[in-house]
Amino acid sequence: MKIGVLCIGDELLKGAVVNTNLAYMGQKLLELGIVPELSLEVPDRPEDVVRGLEFVLNSADFVITSGGLGPTADDLTKPSIAEYLGFPLELCEEAAEAIKARWSTLRHAHGWGKNTQGTLPFHFLNQAYVPKGCRVLMNRFGTAPGIYIAMKEGDRFPGKKIVMLPGPPSELHPMFDDQVIPIVHENMDGKIYSRLFHVSGVPESKVEERMQPVIQALPGLSVAYCAAPEFVKLFLSTRDSGILERASEQVRAIFADSLLSDTSRTVAEEVVHLLARTGHRLATAESCTGGLIASLITDVPGASEIYLGSVVSYANEVKAGMLGVGEETLRTAGAVSADCASEMLSGVCDRLGAECAVSVTGIAGPSGGTAEKPVGLVYIGVRYLDRVRILENRFRGSREQIRARTAAVALNTLRRLILGLD
Amino acid sequence: MKIGVLCIGDELLKGAVVNTNLAYMGQKLLELGIVPELSLEVPDRPEDVVRGLEFVLNSADFVITSGGLGPTADDLTKPSIAEYLGFPLELCEEAAEAIKARWSTLRHAHGWGKNTQGTLPFHFLNQAYVPKGCRVLMNRFGTAPGIYIAMKEGDRFPGKKIVMLPGPPSELHPMFDDQVIPIVHENMDGKIYSRLFHVSGVPESKVEERMQPVIQALPGLSVAYCAAPEFVKLFLSTRDSGILERASEQVRAIFADSLLSDTSRTVAEEVVHLLARTGHRLATAESCTGGLIASLITDVPGASEIYLGSVVSYANEVKAGMLGVGEETLRTAGAVSADCASEMLSGVCDRLGAECAVSVTGIAGPSGGTAEKPVGLVYIGVRYLDRVRILENRFRGSREQIRARTAAVALNTLRRLILGLD
Repeated sequence: MKIGVLCIGDELLKGAVVNTNLAYMGQKLLELGIVPELSLEVPDRPEDVVRGLEFVLNSADFVITSGGLGPTADDLTKPSIAEYLGFPLELCEEAAEAIKARWSTLRHAHGWGKNTQGTLPFHFLNQAYVPKGCRVLMNRFGTAPGIYIAMKEGDRFPGKKIVMLPGPPSELHPMFDDQVIPIVHENMDGKIYSRLFHVSGVPESKVEERMQPVIQALPGLSVAYCAAPEFVKLFLSTRDSGILERASEQVRAIFADSLLSDTSRTVAEEVVHLLARTGHRLATAESCTGGLIASLITDVPGASEIYLGSVVSYANEVKAGMLGVGEETLRTAGAVSADCASEMLSGVCDRLGAECAVSVTGIAGPSGGTAEKPVGLVYIGVRYLDRVRILENRFRGSREQIRARTAAVALNTLRRLILGLD
Repeated sequence: MKIGVLCIGDELLKGAVVNTNLAYMGQKLLELGIVPELSLEVPDRPEDVVRGLEFVLNSADFVITSGGLGPTADDLTKPSIAEYLGFPLELCEEAAEAIKARWSTLRHAHGWGKNTQGTLPFHFLNQAYVPKGCRVLMNRFGTAPGIYIAMKEGDRFPGKKIVMLPGPPSELHPMFDDQVIPIVHENMDGKIYSRLFHVSGVPESKVEERMQPVIQALPGLSVAYCAAPEFVKLFLSTRDSGILERASEQVRAIFADSLLSDTSRTVAEEVVHLLARTGHRLATAESCTGGLIASLITDVPGASEIYLGSVVSYANEVKAGMLGVGEETLRTAGAVSADCASEMLSGVCDRLGAECAVSVTGIAGPSGGTAEKPVGLVYIGVRYLDRVRILENRFRGSREQIRARTAAVALNTLRRLILGLD
């Protein structure tokens, strides 16, 4: 099956919004072993939507659109596409009821309808008109329903399929997971068995190299890689469930300690889960990452079970006053030193009452580097109970990249220390 | 001039990388009053690159490609496009020298060339072959040069222009700013005068409404809006410099206090600049935002001049122990309360020695809400010298959205307090 994506909205082309919907859908499809053939972004103009759809339909037999389904005047996806394909619009009662119900809950919160005596604005109900014969995809997090059209003999593109989804990620994500993925499954020629692994702390080139013998030994196995600062995602897919099991065993044997658990999607999540099991509590002390590690940990719902907090000690007086780093250390070794990272680590454990901690001090740039202590020099301290590690790192890249790599190494080192691997 | 974008790389379709290049270029072009006609993402396959280019060239007369210019086997953009357009490749000496120089600096750092006795791998020099007659765009931050082709009579698409850029944002951004923007200017029919304003704390619909009289009074003025959590970007563009000046005056009069300075691109940056001028120092105390505000402030290069640090007091014992929030307050009013925000604010000022601070405590969800204190309830405290504000907010949305909105309101309130506006 060839999938194509069409993303509709001026805001994508103006750079007001980064197209995260494409990345989201791409990741989910890759878990099924599918890579979209192409993705096209077009403005909210009917002629562009139609021309774009035609191009995507000529390259793919299953097209997913996002955006342009809302109630405002520039939401023209549905009528434009329906007209182009020759489907009349008709009212879907279920969608109309859902829109009315949702509107009456929301209007107080948003102050909508103040000038309309509480009447549903007529253009809201436009969202409940759908192409005749389509399947309506209900939207629990917004008003615009999604649409699934399977074209038959006599239609404009016989045998081809179109799914239309609303643009806001908070609506698109759950609809994609709960409703589109099963439709994609229905349309796949035979079942695909797939599995995703997160390999942490191993460079992408090494992951690829170590997978070569597995790929050679198991015909019909397809493998894809995606590198992020904190790990490499390794996707296996095959039409043979036995091959998937054998490949998975080999992946587990090869990468062993470097694999995250199946339930974790980030290293921070893995750390939160591990500590929730041991009952130990985490604190962080950050200088150059400036709260990024705290932010990654608290991004995980349920982090409050194990996370005490952080001292972001950007200034030296905060390192001294709030974490007890010695004035002598700051004067002689300096704030960017193994000694300072070590004292920040013990300071934050003592003062926050944690059994487990991460400390970071370094130079993220672009300025502040010297010949002796260049931009990218970062000391990372990690402690779990009585195990302590202090690492010296020299990262390359922009300020943003240095901060991201620091957080990735710190969290992975912590993961390994909790597991007793280092 | 109609601009089209072609982004090349499997990683965009697999969701391994979010297409931030499109957003970056879109924002920069919007400052010139240009919105791209379309953007297409295709995989690293020559036939897809060529088919994609043809489609984009049929909709635009100036095409910008990103990606596929590197030294590896799947970097096929340049030969595929050159062959399609009928341009032979020839060695560019200047690019070859730059690649050799860059390679010899980097190979030690990366450990490259260990198996090659220090010889430049031959495929690296492939990057120095460019279509005959093109203009080479030098790349200071990577090895692959960019390319500019202006097609003439007798070429495949006479009069059309193509710019090819490398995919990594750290290379594309400076090349786009320094080299592509001037080329776009050369190709515009007459000069466009444009200006960007950041309007903070005013909803997009209000910004649009207040701009209506300006638009009606000044024919030839074009106005675009982009909403982000922390502000609305307002772009003015016109062919008449006098109209731009009059429109700018009116924007300054209408939005006055809500405008960031011309030199700031984020509210955090504006706050850092304002405090650098007053010489006062900032501290933060964060609960539900968990380090996000600290991270936004320390994203600004030079933040260390004014930023002391943060206490991320996720757990109640950290609110008490590190910030001095009263046990009584935590027991009676609770951690999510105006009293707690107020005590966090004075605690962090006292303990870190700051004249200026932000505190945040709330419920970001998805769990943890109650009927009385629902998800989205957030108290924000802001202090500048003797001015103190405590705000109660009820934000809607996902955990991520609630955290982003909290940070936006906190930083904008701080900005206004420093300026003496609230």
